[in-house]
Amino acid sequence: MKLNGQLHQSLTLLPENAGIRVLDQRLLPWEIKFVCLATLNDVEIAITDMWVRGAPLIGAVAAYGLCFALKHNADDETLIVASNRLLQTRPTAVNLQWAISKQLEKLRPLPPAQRYEAALTVAAQISAEDILLCKAIGAAGLELIQKLAATQNEAPLNILTHCNAGWLATVDYGTALAPIYMAHDAGIPLHIWVDETRPRNQGALTAFELAQHGIPHTYITDNAGGLLMRQGKVDLCIVGADRVARNGDVCNKIGTYLKALAAKANNIPFYAAVPYSTLDPTLANGNTIPIEERDTSEVKTLYGPPYAAGNTQKTTALINTNVTEISHPPYTALQKISLTNANAYNPAFDVTPAELITGYFTERGTLKAHELFS
Amino acid sequence: MKLNGQLHQSLTLLPENAGIRVLDQRLLPWEIKFVCLATLNDVEIAITDMWVRGAPLIGAVAAYGLCFALKHNADDETLIVASNRLLQTRPTAVNLQWAISKQLEKLRPLPPAQRYEAALTVAAQISAEDILLCKAIGAAGLELIQKLAATQNEAPLNILTHCNAGWLATVDYGTALAPIYMAHDAGIPLHIWVDETRPRNQGALTAFELAQHGIPHTYITDNAGGLLMRQGKVDLCIVGADRVARNGDVCNKIGTYLKALAAKANNIPFYAAVPYSTLDPTLANGNTIPIEERDTSEVKTLYGPPYAAGNTQKTTALINTNVTEISHPPYTALQKISLTNANAYNPAFDVTPAELITGYFTERGTLKAHELFS
Repeated sequence: MKLNGQLHQSLTLLPENAGIRVLDQRLLPWEIKFVCLATLNDVEIAITDMWVRGAPLIGAVAAYGLCFALKHNADDETLIVASNRLLQTRPTAVNLQWAISKQLEKLRPLPPAQRYEAALTVAAQISAEDILLCKAIGAAGLELIQKLAATQNEAPLNILTHCNAGWLATVDYGTALAPIYMAHDAGIPLHIWVDETRPRNQGALTAFELAQHGIPHTYITDNAGGLLMRQGKVDLCIVGADRVARNGDVCNKIGTYLKALAAKANNIPFYAAVPYSTLDPTLANGNTIPIEERDTSEVKTLYGPPYAAGNTQKTTALINTNVTEISHPPYTALQKISLTNANAYNPAFDVTPAELITGYFTERGTLKAHELFS
Repeated sequence: MKLNGQLHQSLTLLPENAGIRVLDQRLLPWEIKFVCLATLNDVEIAITDMWVRGAPLIGAVAAYGLCFALKHNADDETLIVASNRLLQTRPTAVNLQWAISKQLEKLRPLPPAQRYEAALTVAAQISAEDILLCKAIGAAGLELIQKLAATQNEAPLNILTHCNAGWLATVDYGTALAPIYMAHDAGIPLHIWVDETRPRNQGALTAFELAQHGIPHTYITDNAGGLLMRQGKVDLCIVGADRVARNGDVCNKIGTYLKALAAKANNIPFYAAVPYSTLDPTLANGNTIPIEERDTSEVKTLYGPPYAAGNTQKTTALINTNVTEISHPPYTALQKISLTNANAYNPAFDVTPAELITGYFTERGTLKAHELFS
């Protein structure tokens, strides 16, 4: 997608496989800064400290991390140690486990001398497949947007989204935002309502992406969407998904359920963008999906931009080839929202029952709940 | 209500009518600091700069502001000039207009020499009436809480509230929080879910009040309530109201509607605490209630505590008798959430349709929508 007017992917392999170029997402939307990850250690730091985030992107970056580990020595011990180090960077990210498993499956039977090249091939496949998947999801959503826009008399179609399921979370295009990018590129006038998405405010990333691609949008608090729907200012909702149960219940970022209820009450179509990696056939419904409870400091405090004084967005070119040399960004002190000793609770996801979901954008087209696992 | 273990009202008249003592609410929950307002100018500053907030409290404070203006000269010109200055402090606060009208109605016919004493009497009546009103609303809510608690087997009753409709917004007790204080004082075990209430985070005030009164509570993001209701962790919702239409539609802080939808979907009783001053017989339904749109800086930034480094709650005794001598609190720089040039929208209220509201706690008891205006 576009960044300062140039086409760009969240992950790019550098010439002669010298490393991968990624954005330091901790600095967004305040600073656009590319970093180069060239060693296993670089990749470990970048995933653990959330320089890169979003399950699909983490999987692809980890796959390259294993390549770098095997460059000079690809014996069995190195393979196992490196895999385990990568798996520990974000133990809950399903795509990370999936990517490492895919690498191990391919590499284990090979003689060490062939492993490095083979690992690069697998990593490239994972990245390429992620792009194709997102494009297919985008194409499914585009069809609906075209239909809805046709009834709009040239007025922009108002789409509400929650959290960030955009290209920053994938290798390119995103999931929930893929249909939006495709519709915009097809010349359909759009306006996006961007939910702030407390407590981690991923809405700021979504607003950043949309601004970079030139798509009109408005940043709102999570509280505002219900009013907007009642006022007829929302034509369509599209959200991502972290896990989908067999009956179509969707686990996604906390707050998704409230927007789905409001959409239903106001007859607004509500769609989830669902890559196959999120389908979990082991769960009959969403009631048993474990809900991650995160640290309450996310609720009680807020990270600010890395510059205490400056507000202007900066662009820093690719400046180094060793992330371990980059110090942590100079965040301002955490801003406090409630007293430090206040009792708080921070569930990270909620479950939206299938009956509130109009349909699912997938790489196999737009499906209904009962078609997801067939 | 309790503050550092002592009973306390949001407004106290000082001996010999020397002034009124109020909390500087800008400093909450970070610092408990009383200030004395003794002149018209003091009161103007305190209302305009939100040292005091909450429609009922603003009305009572303004009524005393007029007293102070008339202390040495109560001729017609002084009366009119002072009234107009007070009316301009917060032009949208209905209670402010109501309190000043009440004063003028009483004072205009009187000879100037009698006006100061008469104004003090009216101001005292307004304060006393606000307390009685809140207590009656609390008693109505207490009845329901007692009924619900009886089915709980001694487990705490979980009540969710949004924004701050507590004693800080009134002279004492609050509206939505009045039933909670009364139930707690009656020995009923409670646990309160406190919605953060972005963008102004009035949840921090509610959490502060509840902590001071020793009521167990948990601070959550506005996104979390839906999940908690689906998980059976909410037994009752109580919210305040800014304006109620003839059909029972309730205009309240943005985000209320989303919680009402979730309560309905999960069969959880949802009550609004409604003093008669919020009933608007001129509106057939909530669709025509004008929704205040506030500055988008509230969405894009966040105020922090007044101490850059310290987090410990401080208590400062009554320290002065002239608020104009107090400098603005040393807020840290605003914390940025989105880019300064980001497009944002900040509606301050939404409308919850009457069909989502189980009942209304009023000074006449608990009513149904069709009984409100009868």
